[in-house]
Amino acid sequence: VRLVRTIDWVDGAVEIIDQTALPDEVRVLRLSTVDGLVDAIRRLAVRGAPALGVAGALGVALAVREHADPAAAITAVRTARPTAVNLARGADRAAAAVPAGPDAVLAEALRVRDEEIASSAAQGRLGADLVTALCGEAPRLLTHCNTGALAAVVDGTALAVVAELHRRGTLGGVVASETRPLLQGARLTAWELRQMGVPFRVAIDSAGPFLMARGQVDAVILGADRICANGDVVNKVGTYAHALGARRAGIPFLVVAPESTVDSGTPDGASVEIEDRGPSEVLAFRGTRTTPDGVDAVNPAFDVTPYDLVTAIVTDRRVIRLDKGERLQ
Amino acid sequence: VRLVRTIDWVDGAVEIIDQTALPDEVRVLRLSTVDGLVDAIRRLAVRGAPALGVAGALGVALAVREHADPAAAITAVRTARPTAVNLARGADRAAAAVPAGPDAVLAEALRVRDEEIASSAAQGRLGADLVTALCGEAPRLLTHCNTGALAAVVDGTALAVVAELHRRGTLGGVVASETRPLLQGARLTAWELRQMGVPFRVAIDSAGPFLMARGQVDAVILGADRICANGDVVNKVGTYAHALGARRAGIPFLVVAPESTVDSGTPDGASVEIEDRGPSEVLAFRGTRTTPDGVDAVNPAFDVTPYDLVTAIVTDRRVIRLDKGERLQ
Repeated sequence: VRLVRTIDWVDGAVEIIDQTALPDEVRVLRLSTVDGLVDAIRRLAVRGAPALGVAGALGVALAVREHADPAAAITAVRTARPTAVNLARGADRAAAAVPAGPDAVLAEALRVRDEEIASSAAQGRLGADLVTALCGEAPRLLTHCNTGALAAVVDGTALAVVAELHRRGTLGGVVASETRPLLQGARLTAWELRQMGVPFRVAIDSAGPFLMARGQVDAVILGADRICANGDVVNKVGTYAHALGARRAGIPFLVVAPESTVDSGTPDGASVEIEDRGPSEVLAFRGTRTTPDGVDAVNPAFDVTPYDLVTAIVTDRRVIRLDKGERLQ
Repeated sequence: VRLVRTIDWVDGAVEIIDQTALPDEVRVLRLSTVDGLVDAIRRLAVRGAPALGVAGALGVALAVREHADPAAAITAVRTARPTAVNLARGADRAAAAVPAGPDAVLAEALRVRDEEIASSAAQGRLGADLVTALCGEAPRLLTHCNTGALAAVVDGTALAVVAELHRRGTLGGVVASETRPLLQGARLTAWELRQMGVPFRVAIDSAGPFLMARGQVDAVILGADRICANGDVVNKVGTYAHALGARRAGIPFLVVAPESTVDSGTPDGASVEIEDRGPSEVLAFRGTRTTPDGVDAVNPAFDVTPYDLVTAIVTDRRVIRLDKGERLQ
């Protein structure tokens, strides 16, 4: 099943599926200003590393249409969220075309979009081959957060592998972590898996390591927001706990992300700024308060999984077997 | 701060604080039938290993008042939830007095209650001494689920240690895991910590291991629903993931529970039946749906932490340093 594109350029504006409205409603937002796009990025109406790369590039296309001097607007797009390298990278690619004029900027932004579409298909094929090689037929996979079409343009990253295995008829089933606090797994991954017809169950995030220990999961497969030069993986908070669980259970821990997620300028996870998104997401659950009044929360949006816990990284171009001593560069 | 008793015998009936109504409302339920008590146990209106032990004993006191032949009612109390050993143990103690008549049954049940109160105080003292010995002054502790007065009669288990450290003026602060799916941490532990005046923040469950990796937690301290003969700990799902995080971070992982939680009849965690509480708790939160329609969930209520990940077990009678090779028997 192909969904409509999560993000695209339509008649002079950016259109996105508002992911905060899913699964209740498929609402398309039309964003014709940089301010509107930056707001959508900040409140996670558009999210996922590949989709953010496209958002960064298309945001620059908006900026050069909106402003005679687009520098401040480009910076606003580029820094709308601090952790995802793809956002800045997509913005930088489009911004490099600014001297050549708005049409050149848009053309470059659309190339970013088209490359993400091709990239998803390649990740799906390489990842499916690897899962079959490591786990044999009918593997039961656990995934975290949302890495499907909604995180990319179409298809996605880790969920592109799930989709490819399902098309090949060699998928045993999926456990989707709900992914507190914003429930991207329960809301978005569940919605996509149901559309694909994949057999799956949702679990709370902290059940994952125990399901692995009891032999109910054959591999963990998920995405990355940033991959450091040494192989450390920055991804949605909860990724690290699942990696610890996979290691103890002796099952593969696989990271699937486009090559553009690899950030050779960041030596390791310790040097990455981790966004704290503030207490309100933790203290409420889709608008229902979870705690007494006057309570504070700590809310890191991402965590760091050290490279030694990662079996392999799959990109659109290659498979890096960290467990066999292979390195990114 | 002492709360009212979580569970008690008042004028011929069992009275409990209905924990499903917290933190919004402090509602006292008066239960004068076995059916009512069993229902309250099943829907977690009363929960926590020590409180369940008292509930089991007082349930038998109800049964002998209600039925000429109380055997079936006693079994209903004893098996209202499958995993917690204290429930069956409390019921068995009171049931042993059945031949001596209803007054003897009630007297034994009240002894179970009074012993739990004394047990909490002893755990608080022993645990506080151990935390100070391991972590020095002002340790920052992470706890999971609810182990305070609401899980016992007064004071609790792991939270009794927190309370004792706070009274001594040697507590740095607390991170309380929210504890999906039923949010005992966000609802109940946050409520108790605020009443105590302890500085704390709530975190989603899967953030714990990362906070440890970043040096923001000095020790993990939590309770147990059952401790197996080999030291494996059966506790609220999420405990195991926190133990993996503590091990990787090199910080102590401490389990505080009454001696009655030790079940020498269960050799290890692999032989414990783990209750799956069904999908509805995962797919909704206090009536708010999290997933699209027609989605299934896997929902283990507990997990097993292997003894080799446990630094020490603190009971009301002793400290067992598993990390130093000490064993329960």
